[in-house]
Amino acid sequence: MQRLTVDLGPRSYPILIGAGLLADASAYDGALGDRSLVVTSESVAALHLESVRAALGRHPFDVIVLPDGDPTKTLGAVERLCGAAAEAGLDRSGTFIALGGGAIGDVTGLAAALYQRGTPYLQLPTTLLAQVDSSVGGKTAVNHAIAKNMIGAFHQPMRVIADVASLRTLPARELRSGIGEVIKYALLDGSAAIDGLERDMPRLLEMEETALTEVVTRCCAAKAAIVAADEFDAGQRATLNLGHSFGHALETAYAGALLHGEAVALGCVMAARLSQSLGWLPARDAARISTLVEAAGLPIRLPSPAPSAERLLEIMRHDKKVAHGVIRLVLLRALGEPVVTGDYPHAALVLTLRDFTMQP
Amino acid sequence: MQRLTVDLGPRSYPILIGAGLLADASAYDGALGDRSLVVTSESVAALHLESVRAALGRHPFDVIVLPDGDPTKTLGAVERLCGAAAEAGLDRSGTFIALGGGAIGDVTGLAAALYQRGTPYLQLPTTLLAQVDSSVGGKTAVNHAIAKNMIGAFHQPMRVIADVASLRTLPARELRSGIGEVIKYALLDGSAAIDGLERDMPRLLEMEETALTEVVTRCCAAKAAIVAADEFDAGQRATLNLGHSFGHALETAYAGALLHGEAVALGCVMAARLSQSLGWLPARDAARISTLVEAAGLPIRLPSPAPSAERLLEIMRHDKKVAHGVIRLVLLRALGEPVVTGDYPHAALVLTLRDFTMQP
Repeated sequence: MQRLTVDLGPRSYPILIGAGLLADASAYDGALGDRSLVVTSESVAALHLESVRAALGRHPFDVIVLPDGDPTKTLGAVERLCGAAAEAGLDRSGTFIALGGGAIGDVTGLAAALYQRGTPYLQLPTTLLAQVDSSVGGKTAVNHAIAKNMIGAFHQPMRVIADVASLRTLPARELRSGIGEVIKYALLDGSAAIDGLERDMPRLLEMEETALTEVVTRCCAAKAAIVAADEFDAGQRATLNLGHSFGHALETAYAGALLHGEAVALGCVMAARLSQSLGWLPARDAARISTLVEAAGLPIRLPSPAPSAERLLEIMRHDKKVAHGVIRLVLLRALGEPVVTGDYPHAALVLTLRDFTMQP
Repeated sequence: MQRLTVDLGPRSYPILIGAGLLADASAYDGALGDRSLVVTSESVAALHLESVRAALGRHPFDVIVLPDGDPTKTLGAVERLCGAAAEAGLDRSGTFIALGGGAIGDVTGLAAALYQRGTPYLQLPTTLLAQVDSSVGGKTAVNHAIAKNMIGAFHQPMRVIADVASLRTLPARELRSGIGEVIKYALLDGSAAIDGLERDMPRLLEMEETALTEVVTRCCAAKAAIVAADEFDAGQRATLNLGHSFGHALETAYAGALLHGEAVALGCVMAARLSQSLGWLPARDAARISTLVEAAGLPIRLPSPAPSAERLLEIMRHDKKVAHGVIRLVLLRALGEPVVTGDYPHAALVLTLRDFTMQP
């Protein structure tokens, strides 16, 4: 088992990473309050709820099962979770437990942030995406019809327990989607990290537990360092959005037909292309990124029928990362050198969007 | 104009108190972002929106009008406000402006807390209740069918602008309800403050502006000191809940037929009676509290038909202030000596509830 710490003073917490942790009672030691509410989704409950039940033993808890996937991220679900917590007798010394992918983690984290103005919670991420990214750092949110993740809060978990064995139950497409975020971390880190990922990709795609543990640990360590430096997203943390400004627009435009990590991977390819067009990133590095994304079985072109460039631009304008009306993007000065900037020619952004939305 | 500061380091903010401030552009100086969303209620819009419009001048803003009163405090309203903010083009450098009573302040504050994970907001309280209590301190919340204020967040405003002239438009019952919270502050402060309030009561009830400015300033100063010492309600701040454990239960049981300040005043009388029954508060001090509450035209007995003691107890068990299953109450060791405690005989609480719920 690997153990990392997210260093946030009084809000510091550990991340435990290893195979079989969900069923391991010692992984939960000292992290549970009086009683708990386990929040999970239909498909995850079928696969992993018994492991968690076994580990919790005699600890008193209730379970609530939400529908799978991103559509579950609504304020209505937050209200339902708060009601379930009250029915289960949770007070501020109780604990929410998020068992599932990013959507379950986000909606449970927000319910915990709001229930009685703040109640502790644990993250038990069961997808690669959630393990390497969304379960760490305390960003919680639900969607609004107008924009994804528009309504949310910063609320750090008490602990993250990442059981890499749970990833073996993922559909292949979900695993690849998670690799989209893994690729993002490698691009942020630089050429050596990309070398490593190029080398490890076959073992990752075969869901080899050692490779998974290594990769999850590497990504979580990178994320923990960035979150510790910038908990409330005032600066450096924004680099984690590499690929996300494009990615969120794609997710909205495709209305669920693209998974988050697929959209992020494609968003990284688009950010690389724009960086290249600005003369920042050499063509061979942009090409290397496309090759890596393709090697993971992730898209490097927009699926047909593609939305218009204007439609994507319109969605990007409603993104949280817009400040004073300027669309701020994470671009690459070089591999491992992200820059968060609104200082690029608008025409270059439009041209990149046109390039990708024109069907061949 | 009086000016106080709530001292919270990087989250410090001023409270401005005086007559005519809503229409005074200088009161808003330096507190507004790029553009704003003014949130108000139907009756307040009719009385005060033009003043605010005049003060905002050319600053770009939109207005959204919610229904009046506590029923507007729902997650659905939060969702609506976030949607309106997005439509109005607010980003994190925009500002929510809460113009109205406690309900508008609470729901707007929560929307601001959640919109893009945190956006600045101003409090423009137009009721006595909101000016002396809810607009200061950053507690925001909406109600859940199971319990009031169950879903919320700590989110400090950028500024509080309390225009005491707006209180002259209040219905007499609303003003008296606000005096319920004023009485609470006097009980927390001690015998001298109670003397002063006994003396000022006639001028307060006549809505004399000098008396209102004095009283609002005194209460805000008390609240600012307590909030500065305990922003996140980990200890001392809980004393502000004097009268509220009983009061919230009464509000729920009477389903809107009792105003918040009426319930708090009656709750203070009940807390005093329980404190007396424990041998803490002399009978003459408990009687003095009843007399003061009655002098404000506030209830000292439960209106008929009264709920049962068991029903009130059941509601109190779902209160946020319950920890580890114990109902923690704010009781009085003496006038000016509140104590937050779960360490009292349960039978004494039941007896007090029975005393008050038995109809004569």
